[in-house]
Amino acid sequence: MNDLWEFSVKDYIKEDNYKNGTLFNLANGYSGMRGYNEFSLYNNPGNYIAGIFDRSTAQVTELVNLPNPLLMNIYINGQKIDLDLNNVIDYQRILDMKNGILRNEFIVEVQKGMRVKVESERFVSRKNVHRWGSRYSVTSLDSQAFLVFESSIDGGTVNSQNNPKEVTKHYKVSSVHDLKQAIMMVVKTNDKKIEVAQASCLVMKERKFSKLKFNDLQCMVQQAGDIVAAKGETVVVYKFGSSYSSRESSNAGMDCKRELEAFIVEGYENELQKHSELWQGFWDGSDIKIQGNTQAQAALRFNIFHLSSCAYDKDQTVSIGAKGLHGEGYKGHVFWDTETFMLPFFIYTQPEVARALLMYRYNTLDGARRNAFMNGFSGAQYAWESADDGLETTPKWGYDYNNKPVRIWTGDIEVHISSDIVFSIFEYYRATEDKDFMFKYGSEIIFEVCRFWTGRTVYNKDKDLWEIKSVIGPDEFHEHVDNNFYTNYLVKWTFSKALELRQKMKDECPWELNRIENYLCLTEKDYAAWKRISDKILINKQQGTDIIEQFEGYFDLKDYEITSADENGMPQWPTGLDLSELNATKLIKQPDVIMLMLMMPQEFSEKELKANYEYYEKRTMHKSSLSPSMYSIMGMKVGDTHNAFSYFMKCINTDIKDNQGNSLMGLHAASSAGAWQTAVYGFGGFGIDSQGMACFSPWLAPDLQSIEFSVVYKNSRIKVFYDHKKVVITSERDMQVKVYSEVILLKSGIECEVKVNK
Amino acid sequence: MNDLWEFSVKDYIKEDNYKNGTLFNLANGYSGMRGYNEFSLYNNPGNYIAGIFDRSTAQVTELVNLPNPLLMNIYINGQKIDLDLNNVIDYQRILDMKNGILRNEFIVEVQKGMRVKVESERFVSRKNVHRWGSRYSVTSLDSQAFLVFESSIDGGTVNSQNNPKEVTKHYKVSSVHDLKQAIMMVVKTNDKKIEVAQASCLVMKERKFSKLKFNDLQCMVQQAGDIVAAKGETVVVYKFGSSYSSRESSNAGMDCKRELEAFIVEGYENELQKHSELWQGFWDGSDIKIQGNTQAQAALRFNIFHLSSCAYDKDQTVSIGAKGLHGEGYKGHVFWDTETFMLPFFIYTQPEVARALLMYRYNTLDGARRNAFMNGFSGAQYAWESADDGLETTPKWGYDYNNKPVRIWTGDIEVHISSDIVFSIFEYYRATEDKDFMFKYGSEIIFEVCRFWTGRTVYNKDKDLWEIKSVIGPDEFHEHVDNNFYTNYLVKWTFSKALELRQKMKDECPWELNRIENYLCLTEKDYAAWKRISDKILINKQQGTDIIEQFEGYFDLKDYEITSADENGMPQWPTGLDLSELNATKLIKQPDVIMLMLMMPQEFSEKELKANYEYYEKRTMHKSSLSPSMYSIMGMKVGDTHNAFSYFMKCINTDIKDNQGNSLMGLHAASSAGAWQTAVYGFGGFGIDSQGMACFSPWLAPDLQSIEFSVVYKNSRIKVFYDHKKVVITSERDMQVKVYSEVILLKSGIECEVKVNK
Repeated sequence: MNDLWEFSVKDYIKEDNYKNGTLFNLANGYSGMRGYNEFSLYNNPGNYIAGIFDRSTAQVTELVNLPNPLLMNIYINGQKIDLDLNNVIDYQRILDMKNGILRNEFIVEVQKGMRVKVESERFVSRKNVHRWGSRYSVTSLDSQAFLVFESSIDGGTVNSQNNPKEVTKHYKVSSVHDLKQAIMMVVKTNDKKIEVAQASCLVMKERKFSKLKFNDLQCMVQQAGDIVAAKGETVVVYKFGSSYSSRESSNAGMDCKRELEAFIVEGYENELQKHSELWQGFWDGSDIKIQGNTQAQAALRFNIFHLSSCAYDKDQTVSIGAKGLHGEGYKGHVFWDTETFMLPFFIYTQPEVARALLMYRYNTLDGARRNAFMNGFSGAQYAWESADDGLETTPKWGYDYNNKPVRIWTGDIEVHISSDIVFSIFEYYRATEDKDFMFKYGSEIIFEVCRFWTGRTVYNKDKDLWEIKSVIGPDEFHEHVDNNFYTNYLVKWTFSKALELRQKMKDECPWELNRIENYLCLTEKDYAAWKRISDKILINKQQGTDIIEQFEGYFDLKDYEITSADENGMPQWPTGLDLSELNATKLIKQPDVIMLMLMMPQEFSEKELKANYEYYEKRTMHKSSLSPSMYSIMGMKVGDTHNAFSYFMKCINTDIKDNQGNSLMGLHAASSAGAWQTAVYGFGGFGIDSQGMACFSPWLAPDLQSIEFSVVYKNSRIKVFYDHKKVVITSERDMQVKVYSEVILLKSGIECEVKVNK
Repeated sequence: MNDLWEFSVKDYIKEDNYKNGTLFNLANGYSGMRGYNEFSLYNNPGNYIAGIFDRSTAQVTELVNLPNPLLMNIYINGQKIDLDLNNVIDYQRILDMKNGILRNEFIVEVQKGMRVKVESERFVSRKNVHRWGSRYSVTSLDSQAFLVFESSIDGGTVNSQNNPKEVTKHYKVSSVHDLKQAIMMVVKTNDKKIEVAQASCLVMKERKFSKLKFNDLQCMVQQAGDIVAAKGETVVVYKFGSSYSSRESSNAGMDCKRELEAFIVEGYENELQKHSELWQGFWDGSDIKIQGNTQAQAALRFNIFHLSSCAYDKDQTVSIGAKGLHGEGYKGHVFWDTETFMLPFFIYTQPEVARALLMYRYNTLDGARRNAFMNGFSGAQYAWESADDGLETTPKWGYDYNNKPVRIWTGDIEVHISSDIVFSIFEYYRATEDKDFMFKYGSEIIFEVCRFWTGRTVYNKDKDLWEIKSVIGPDEFHEHVDNNFYTNYLVKWTFSKALELRQKMKDECPWELNRIENYLCLTEKDYAAWKRISDKILINKQQGTDIIEQFEGYFDLKDYEITSADENGMPQWPTGLDLSELNATKLIKQPDVIMLMLMMPQEFSEKELKANYEYYEKRTMHKSSLSPSMYSIMGMKVGDTHNAFSYFMKCINTDIKDNQGNSLMGLHAASSAGAWQTAVYGFGGFGIDSQGMACFSPWLAPDLQSIEFSVVYKNSRIKVFYDHKKVVITSERDMQVKVYSEVILLKSGIECEVKVNK
């Protein structure tokens, strides 16, 4: 254990408990438990099970904050251990990322001359996703102590706890149970009546409690055990936890109880051991090693840790929300963030997770069809914000600082997401050649999205071109724009790739194509329409310049120079700018044209990439946490490395340093994924060329010593190590790859060294 | 308004919120609401309705902590006003005792450069006991502000919140209601299914909220209103509250709703006005004015305020618990404290309240009969600790500092309480001549208590005397003692007064006597037994000394000198003392022999009073808050005034300075009453002589300028003013009184001046 594998906080500041809830979150893809601090009243507890959404009286459906089973009050001689009341002598909170364990260590003076040392740990099992556990070691340093451990499951949790305009409790406590050793609470969500059972149990190993008391407080259930400890004696108490929902069980209460019983019998240490092994196995395949910068190393792992903790390949009906399983930001909704930013990480490290995430889109295709239908289109229109069923869940209204309602248009017109999903399916397919997925599921999504676009594009007789009017591109500063380059280009690409796919299926598995054509009532007329639009959609490339206009009229907007940066190096608003008129300026929130170029660089010349990078980079405000990493990657592609490392550091510290000021609302999961992309696509120079060959053009920041990473491509893990002199590359299977434009034949398991191209 | 009528706290210390919950409690006899601080998470909220007790899983039945309707979160620009998080610039909490209003005034900086001023008040109506209200005036000092007022009724309250071994929730939330303007919660207690409805409503007067949102959180119901305020604009929000229970209503929910509606229609200011008038009317009759010491004046009023706030003459089925309606100490139980310490205050200021309190004993007579029956006796044995039905509710077990169980014997053998009640009935009767009460109700109690004593006393053939074995007297350091002087003397007195009463009833209302004799099956045999025991009960007065032995064998115990005092002037344990063997020492907890002498001074010679005072005072540890005031009074009686004023100051500051360290558990109500007794019985030298004449021998501490008080005696208010030179006395009716042994005939309304006897 060392600094390279730890994220830690050494000062106790009560206000930080809120963001630390996110930073010390533990998840296993099935559930996410925020880093609740048991020893403070200042918390925004969060306990989520992926896929459990509820609307009730809220504006939109949201990921339900379930009862909090983590409550643990420890009393010593009648005084509660409370970091805000006691004198804190020593304090440390550590996230052990290698093993997926959260640790607390502190000494407090509960009363004058009554010091107590507490060491605790918590894990949310990767082995059995329905289990979590914690351990408390308590030592009274100055005297004999009468200790009480009061463990509760709190059914009083709400969503938006600190936002009185939005506070909603999404469930009712149905019952609490005295399991005669353990306690259990069963709740039911308001709308869909999803039942969730949670149980927990206090256990001492060597000694036993003097007494264990059960307490039914209606919306809280408690168990309190007490014991007298000698001065200096360390009392160890285990808390076993389990949870089940009616999403995966026909009797959640019974399964929850059985799971807990099995957990107790198998033992805490045993479960923890298996959990750690799985985390270590994960790191074996997904770690990126950076030599030369300890902080960068630990911070990068922090991002990979949290991102991958949200994944669960066994459930194909859930995806990863923009805030992970880490908080209530964006209501737990799934955006293009998942496919565009996060999916590459999973495609190239855990393809089975990538498949599950894409299956979520397949399993919510009916919702997307319904969205299209509600908007007057056929086919499938993916929701800008998606929850459990794929229906559009973007709120229609938000509020500005003066509590004035502001119409939110993204759910209506940020339509590029449907093609983003198509794009990611092809990315997945290219890397995995998973025909089973592509022919059975991916194709159905792709064809239905094409069908949506045939309705959403409009024919302009004067221009003899197809247009897409009134959209929002990736840059959300500009709403209701026409012919956004990103959107139109991606739609054109979607149609042509769909037609290619159709041909491929005709050749390779006509029976699947036949089934889908029958089911979707697809005819040659449809394909002809796709071809027609693809050929003649307005692609806004102007003569005489390599710079692409982001959308029609963008070049006519008012130009502002970004000239100053804040203390974090982030751009500041130009002086004199009226924020309500951003729409009328060339300032952009995040990459738009550049985003497309990153997604399909082979479609553009190096000159185009460079010209557009230079043009747009200086007009980008980076008001999305997704932005810096993307510019970092493109910078490296076009040979502008001067910002690369600092953008990378910014990106990996997004949550660690709370750059956006809202880490308390959850993980910036796409930024975490952006960190991986910067390391692998940027520094590693990894890409797939138009012939489908894996390419690597590593670049190493001057201050670093070496980087090591691996990607899984076409079922073969390719490991890359490089320093300032050489690139060492190996593949599990025989494979041709390119390193700095040089084609190399890798022989299975044999290291191949290439001199660094300076 | 000035210091003489205010109790205030000017520093905000979060740890003090707990005891301030008691110090700023508001009650109207029907209900008591602890001084909950809405702007902190550190609180032990308490909301009690007199007479609502429940046992559930607790050791004994306890006063139920009902849902807390006082929750109010105020958000300014999204930031919660929180005294523990914000920078507190200015802070003041004031109890306006003249008008019965609690006020808060503070300025906090919620964020840098965002100061907000909050002024709030709260009252629990004396006019309509089912109503309470509060007002919040909020001013954003630095900028325009978006304000949200989030008002809740919290159904998550429990008893013993900070004691994990005893935490109990005594009710279940049955339902919450959106009253379309207001919110309501209905709960039901676990055992007796008493229903309690509480409603509240946020109202703005001039402006209206932009929006009022209802929120059902199952165990909490909320209402949130928001509004934008200009910089410097004071936004005023009223919170109306009402409560009803099924103890007094057949439809608590409906009555609660109607009460709230009527309250809103009649208006906040109107109710507050009437409430204030009632408090002022109360003070007209019950105030004690002390010139020359501001702190003493305010502190004495503090005690009178809190004591009288617990009284409610309309309900004859409840009494005042040892901790008032101010907290959960002693579980809300009623002890001898009420009759022996508190009742004199009510007898001589509000006889109608005294009658109601005695009626509680009448209405729980069946419980007392049951207690006697359970212990093998006939008649009525009053519970040492009494709740709603008069059954014994003293816990049998407590815990020492090492969590070792300790048997509590008071409920079994501290039997003097039954005669204490008889004594107080005669006291009440002597002062009021309320024959209706005495003949109909008092007599039944008295006769039943006599009957109990015939069983509890035992005849000792050798001595030819009746004895009372194995008791605890007022001094609880000594358990299982025989022939405690206090107890035996009072029992003798009880019998003889009962026989007198019987004779009186025979003469004055034989039909009532006849009814009672029939009902109680009382025969001449009973009376004869009373006479027999009364004549021959062991009264432990020894020849050759005026000092009375507290109980048999007391003089043989180990003697300890109290030689040192702590920083509060309270005695410290003599060195070398083993606290587990107090039983074997002469140290006493509180007056025992002296207590009896105070209750019936006319039965003892001045020499006896003095000798016993001197003997016992130096062996008294004052481990009861009732102790110092009693010694103060006796000191003045026997001419030892040197401790009188300092004991008085100690007594009036018991809670203000938290002398006993447990003010957070509730008011030391008997100590509050002791303050009144010290002022009136001690300083005022008020007493009734054996001929029933009111006597006054005022004594003025050298530092004071004057004292003014009044007592109601035989239906006539006697006002007394005195300074160092004269005593000025008036009576509403013609009346003979004694001033310094001089008999004076007061003519109705005419001032009479007597020179001070130095």
